[in-house]
Amino acid sequence: MCLPAHTVGMSDPFVVVGGDAAGMSAASKARREAPDREIVVFEKGEWVSYGACGLPYYVKGEIQSLEDLVSVTPEEFREERDIDLRTGHEVVAVDTDERTVTAESESGTVTQSYGDLLLATGSEAVVPPIDGTDREGVYTLGSMSDGKELREYVARARDGEGFQQPDRGPACRYLEDCTGPVGVVGGGYIGIEMAEALAENGFEVNLFQRGDRVLKGFSDETSEYVADHLRDKDVALHLDAEVEELAGGDRVETVVTADDRIPVEMVLLGTGVRPRTDLAEAAGIELGETGAISADAYRETSALDVYAAGDCAEATHVVTGDPTYVPLALTANRHGRAIGQTVTGTPTEGGGVAGTAAVKAFDVEAARTGILDYEAARAAGFDPVSETVTAKSRAGYYPEGGNVRLTLTADRDSGRVLGASLASEYGEGAVHRSHAVVAALSEGATVADLENYDLAYAPPFNTTWDPVLVAAKVLGGQLRD
Amino acid sequence: MCLPAHTVGMSDPFVVVGGDAAGMSAASKARREAPDREIVVFEKGEWVSYGACGLPYYVKGEIQSLEDLVSVTPEEFREERDIDLRTGHEVVAVDTDERTVTAESESGTVTQSYGDLLLATGSEAVVPPIDGTDREGVYTLGSMSDGKELREYVARARDGEGFQQPDRGPACRYLEDCTGPVGVVGGGYIGIEMAEALAENGFEVNLFQRGDRVLKGFSDETSEYVADHLRDKDVALHLDAEVEELAGGDRVETVVTADDRIPVEMVLLGTGVRPRTDLAEAAGIELGETGAISADAYRETSALDVYAAGDCAEATHVVTGDPTYVPLALTANRHGRAIGQTVTGTPTEGGGVAGTAAVKAFDVEAARTGILDYEAARAAGFDPVSETVTAKSRAGYYPEGGNVRLTLTADRDSGRVLGASLASEYGEGAVHRSHAVVAALSEGATVADLENYDLAYAPPFNTTWDPVLVAAKVLGGQLRD
Repeated sequence: MCLPAHTVGMSDPFVVVGGDAAGMSAASKARREAPDREIVVFEKGEWVSYGACGLPYYVKGEIQSLEDLVSVTPEEFREERDIDLRTGHEVVAVDTDERTVTAESESGTVTQSYGDLLLATGSEAVVPPIDGTDREGVYTLGSMSDGKELREYVARARDGEGFQQPDRGPACRYLEDCTGPVGVVGGGYIGIEMAEALAENGFEVNLFQRGDRVLKGFSDETSEYVADHLRDKDVALHLDAEVEELAGGDRVETVVTADDRIPVEMVLLGTGVRPRTDLAEAAGIELGETGAISADAYRETSALDVYAAGDCAEATHVVTGDPTYVPLALTANRHGRAIGQTVTGTPTEGGGVAGTAAVKAFDVEAARTGILDYEAARAAGFDPVSETVTAKSRAGYYPEGGNVRLTLTADRDSGRVLGASLASEYGEGAVHRSHAVVAALSEGATVADLENYDLAYAPPFNTTWDPVLVAAKVLGGQLRD
Repeated sequence: MCLPAHTVGMSDPFVVVGGDAAGMSAASKARREAPDREIVVFEKGEWVSYGACGLPYYVKGEIQSLEDLVSVTPEEFREERDIDLRTGHEVVAVDTDERTVTAESESGTVTQSYGDLLLATGSEAVVPPIDGTDREGVYTLGSMSDGKELREYVARARDGEGFQQPDRGPACRYLEDCTGPVGVVGGGYIGIEMAEALAENGFEVNLFQRGDRVLKGFSDETSEYVADHLRDKDVALHLDAEVEELAGGDRVETVVTADDRIPVEMVLLGTGVRPRTDLAEAAGIELGETGAISADAYRETSALDVYAAGDCAEATHVVTGDPTYVPLALTANRHGRAIGQTVTGTPTEGGGVAGTAAVKAFDVEAARTGILDYEAARAAGFDPVSETVTAKSRAGYYPEGGNVRLTLTADRDSGRVLGASLASEYGEGAVHRSHAVVAALSEGATVADLENYDLAYAPPFNTTWDPVLVAAKVLGGQLRD
């Protein structure tokens, strides 16, 4: 055997690169399973284990302190969980032959050997390749410090200390009394959540979307539902509006598209994220076709005892069985936790992903899961067919209630449920109702199976047939014809 | 062949006994599938296709008109759906040899031949065998006319035209200013929904439960959660309080238990329902062990071409595979619809039941599904094990939110999910979250499968691990130990 001796113990540390959801879940789980193992976590920033998903609500002002987003503090990890957490340490190299990582900090460079290594390097906000993204007043929202800067900006602007050029007159186009105006580039989750956060603070918000609809991973019908609501909330929606330049002086002043020049005093880029893979690539670890780190069912990469989890890694789609890149918090937590078990002697699969996502946009909620895109479905060997229904969210006679708009997609031949996209008024249950479809597609269930689920019913919660069942009935009817 | 000729057509009517959910779903579906078939529905009352589940909200005053509970009127069935609906017709006999039913109405007796027959005779409220249930002021809530009477009573009492005996002084024990007091016997759905309806109208409500907890089909923890809330809402909860007599003169005046005599001016009996099977029994059609009409997967009874659906019939439990009696609206609709397809040439199974139920109690919501009772689980060959968790309903830092209390039960050896019981503040999603568990147990999924479902997450809707996943993690941990 040419492999180094590999036994679990003090001389065989579990080393984690990256101290957010995946990394800290793994470290914590490993600590619970192996109280005596040495566990070292390198985090280049100061924050660990924070809920980045909460940042838009912090900027909005609904959450008062950045610390509120932190589920466990560095001190708690160190003192209560006995994890050797080294913040301010950036790992700059991994040597899979020597089984070491090299980290740099203010106090110098350290080399740390590992028995097992987890790469949980996360993702970074994509900055689109256009002129002007380096101007002042252009933000992304990927990190706690981004959130801090944006909140400070919002507070200043609300206090009348914004950056309007006094010589250009009132810049708002459609609000009588506005802060801003501001631009949001990208109509995905972050773009929409930030449009809400800014608009609810009195900003005139221009949302620029390159394609013809927001939330492009959702169904057309959900996109339309959300877009209509954004307009109702006075968000200026610029569809098919590719941003060509963020023009201005030191500060951004204008969003330039092919058709328009929109004055702004701030721009938020919500144009997606990409996996941070430099470290893995440099170490010769394989990336998948998606560009994220490839890993097997146990989340082990092409390098022995090197695992990957969270926003830097691929996962297996439960419907297609293919690797996919869906960087979301639950998967990061779940995969981290599984790795924590695996490296402490209980091999545990990380589980697949269904591409499930949820978003709140002002007074509506939306969710999506599975495969909705017909091209993607066909590429996976399916013959997709869909139905969209609009069904009451509660008994028609019940005093509260609204509608759920639900698109259900299935394979024509097998009837297998492939995906769903749902929207409703906030509180009317589009998101929680999606749970039934996630379960169905995770189990390989057919539309007929779904149609027969004995879902809970009472007038304050749904009609006798829950909207999910209504959609299954209608799609089932089409499949039977 | 000694069977009568049996071809679908004008001479071969589809006859339905009972015009509520099961009956009218079957008739409507059969009409859509077979535009020329003769379809005759006998209904002994005047109302058809009404939402009995909405009656408590009508009594409460949140629904203004009884007609609002009717989803399709008799006229619409007759004129738009071309169904020969005969209200005021009570079927008094079925002859399965002659293939006829005999119905009586004000205008006499008719004999109607059938090609296919559906018995959808429903259920009736159980009146417990105690003295005094025939006194004035004692109500049940099984029918539209019951609802009408109760609403009229509530309106009179609120207007100060109640029935307090002037010589007995203030009858309320704990409310300073109350209407009533009144008694509700039975802590199931109807009892609890009516306790809310009455209390919200200013009545002092005494709820009597024979056993030691309300909602006995739910988990102990859910019962406790709901009971605590009922007490918070000033409902006087009398547990382990078997009612021995409803004493009084012409009108009820006192609820007598072994330990107490509670003055009341009205009593609502919410002590469950039993299937109406007289007609089937007299016709020699088999009943099951539950006492309800037995039927196969296609809902056909022991008599050829005679089907049964709704509250008069058994259904197959998806977890145990055994016949069970769970009289609820969705099953009635679903089975009726399947029969409508079967009798028009597309044999369709009715589907099983999971015993899923939901209830709102003031400001809390609760749901249950599957097998929770350990004796029932053992009788079905399982070795049940449970965990109860209390998990946040939304991200901890999110400004809204509460808790979901969730009991999850599984089979120890196989890990198979057997059932769940959930409670939360109203609006915090106990009911819609139960959908995931219904799907899981319908698919025979294990706790490990459930734990890996990629459920939707965003801070306004849950924590990164939805409460359902938290429960699966905790129970999964116990199963792995």
